[in-house]
Amino acid sequence: MCSPEIVQRVHDQIRTGSSRYDRRHLLRGTAAAGAIAAMNVATPRGVFAQATPAATPLASPAASPVASLGVGTIPANSIVDMTHVMSPTFPVWPGNEPFAMETLSTVVPDGFYTNKLSYYEHTCTHLDAPAHFVDGAPTADLLPVENFVAPLAVIDISARATDDPDTGVTPDDIAAWEAANGPLPAGAFVAMYSGWEARLVDPASFINQDADGVQHYPGFTPEAATFLLDERDIVGIGVDTLSQDPGNSTDFGTHIAILSAGRYGIEGMASLGLVPPAGGTIVVGAPKHLHASGGPTRAFTLF
Amino acid sequence: MCSPEIVQRVHDQIRTGSSRYDRRHLLRGTAAAGAIAAMNVATPRGVFAQATPAATPLASPAASPVASLGVGTIPANSIVDMTHVMSPTFPVWPGNEPFAMETLSTVVPDGFYTNKLSYYEHTCTHLDAPAHFVDGAPTADLLPVENFVAPLAVIDISARATDDPDTGVTPDDIAAWEAANGPLPAGAFVAMYSGWEARLVDPASFINQDADGVQHYPGFTPEAATFLLDERDIVGIGVDTLSQDPGNSTDFGTHIAILSAGRYGIEGMASLGLVPPAGGTIVVGAPKHLHASGGPTRAFTLF
Repeated sequence: MCSPEIVQRVHDQIRTGSSRYDRRHLLRGTAAAGAIAAMNVATPRGVFAQATPAATPLASPAASPVASLGVGTIPANSIVDMTHVMSPTFPVWPGNEPFAMETLSTVVPDGFYTNKLSYYEHTCTHLDAPAHFVDGAPTADLLPVENFVAPLAVIDISARATDDPDTGVTPDDIAAWEAANGPLPAGAFVAMYSGWEARLVDPASFINQDADGVQHYPGFTPEAATFLLDERDIVGIGVDTLSQDPGNSTDFGTHIAILSAGRYGIEGMASLGLVPPAGGTIVVGAPKHLHASGGPTRAFTLF
Repeated sequence: MCSPEIVQRVHDQIRTGSSRYDRRHLLRGTAAAGAIAAMNVATPRGVFAQATPAATPLASPAASPVASLGVGTIPANSIVDMTHVMSPTFPVWPGNEPFAMETLSTVVPDGFYTNKLSYYEHTCTHLDAPAHFVDGAPTADLLPVENFVAPLAVIDISARATDDPDTGVTPDDIAAWEAANGPLPAGAFVAMYSGWEARLVDPASFINQDADGVQHYPGFTPEAATFLLDERDIVGIGVDTLSQDPGNSTDFGTHIAILSAGRYGIEGMASLGLVPPAGGTIVVGAPKHLHASGGPTRAFTLF
């Protein structure tokens, strides 16, 4: 999915501080989340040794796990669920196993109903943590909790996506959003609405591979991701397709930009066409398993 | 965990409408959530046939997935994460398998880091859906989204729990909370803080089994659960221990009362001692896999 050369370049940028993406955000978040993790008595195990992010220092346990949001109040007259139902039929990245569930007991005759779940982390509506593409970057369990409540901006490119599945959110789209809605608020979560979820009635059309196996669906262009990181203040981005990058990306430039800056992405979002383009607040129920590269995420928009 | 006789009694109550618990809440929620599920193109599969809740009608797809919260604004100056880190060391119900994670790829040399997860639904901080104990009741994916944003009431019995692990929240504790904080708000989520998470440094002491295998930790007494359902208006209850019922319960009276009324429970909550007893708002990032009896839940308190 991503060449070793690109990954190495990102590593070099992070190590030397030469990245144009703001490292302060990354480090601030790590400290806050580390305190919570320490409190939660999370203990790395041997099975994870290979994947353990080595560069994630734990903050002092004395640091407060009560984080500041400082936004005063959040409008909450309506709520929309931004999450699809995870099931064996939900389309996954080609080659990945689908979600699986085994029923262990049922109310009749056992008295209670329970299941065992098995799935790849990047299934259905899910979060990509910085560690997904950047070795040593924070895993999902270490992301700062205050970044999970954010002003939501929805950029609607659905009209264009109908005709061109290879389209993507551009800096011009962001400019058009701001012309209509005012400047992007600080700490925004910026989501692309392409209307792609209508294709879930036919999972193959959601992945939309051509004869050569290349996927075709919209995402954020790397230029838009870079603009958001350099010129605006965001906590992350979201898409209603399988990938932050357009499906035909060969270099995963948007993933690498967003994740190496310590921000997160959410893929496979639901109902972005049902919330206002501006003025909503998204609450991101991110996964919190130890050393998570990402995982299923329950997100709501309040407005 | 629960005798067939008790379960049958609950079924009879629900079927005949003789239950003292309010069915309206159950049915209202099912309709709203059904519309969302229909939109999300969830399709039952053969593997789930045994567990499919048969009594969950889908609402018309024309119903709006934009649900009313109608609470105006939510104070949001601070945020606390109510969720523990899920890992192989987190204590589970005796006999259950712990959380497991297999690393599938790493940034070096693969270019990206991913894992496969396997776990029982009722692991770490997690939700119990009505279907967990009541055949035909809503599964977690069908719970009404508007019940996942709720005024939080925290009842602190930690002083008593230190001396008596078999204690539980009683109607008197609720009365004492109201004497201090005013009437329980409508649609409240009521949580027990027993201080039990301090025992996570030694997982065996969290489960606290005696020589006969009986568990000893606090929960809600069935009398308190019944009071909350009959005399107040709640969306669910939460505990910082392994079970809604005290660990030594033999009839799971609290589970059955809460779940047969269409409410939900959250077990293994974190940081309830760090939020105010009244005035906070909990946002419950409930699991949303198809036919979920429950599952890991990311919850935040805003205040």
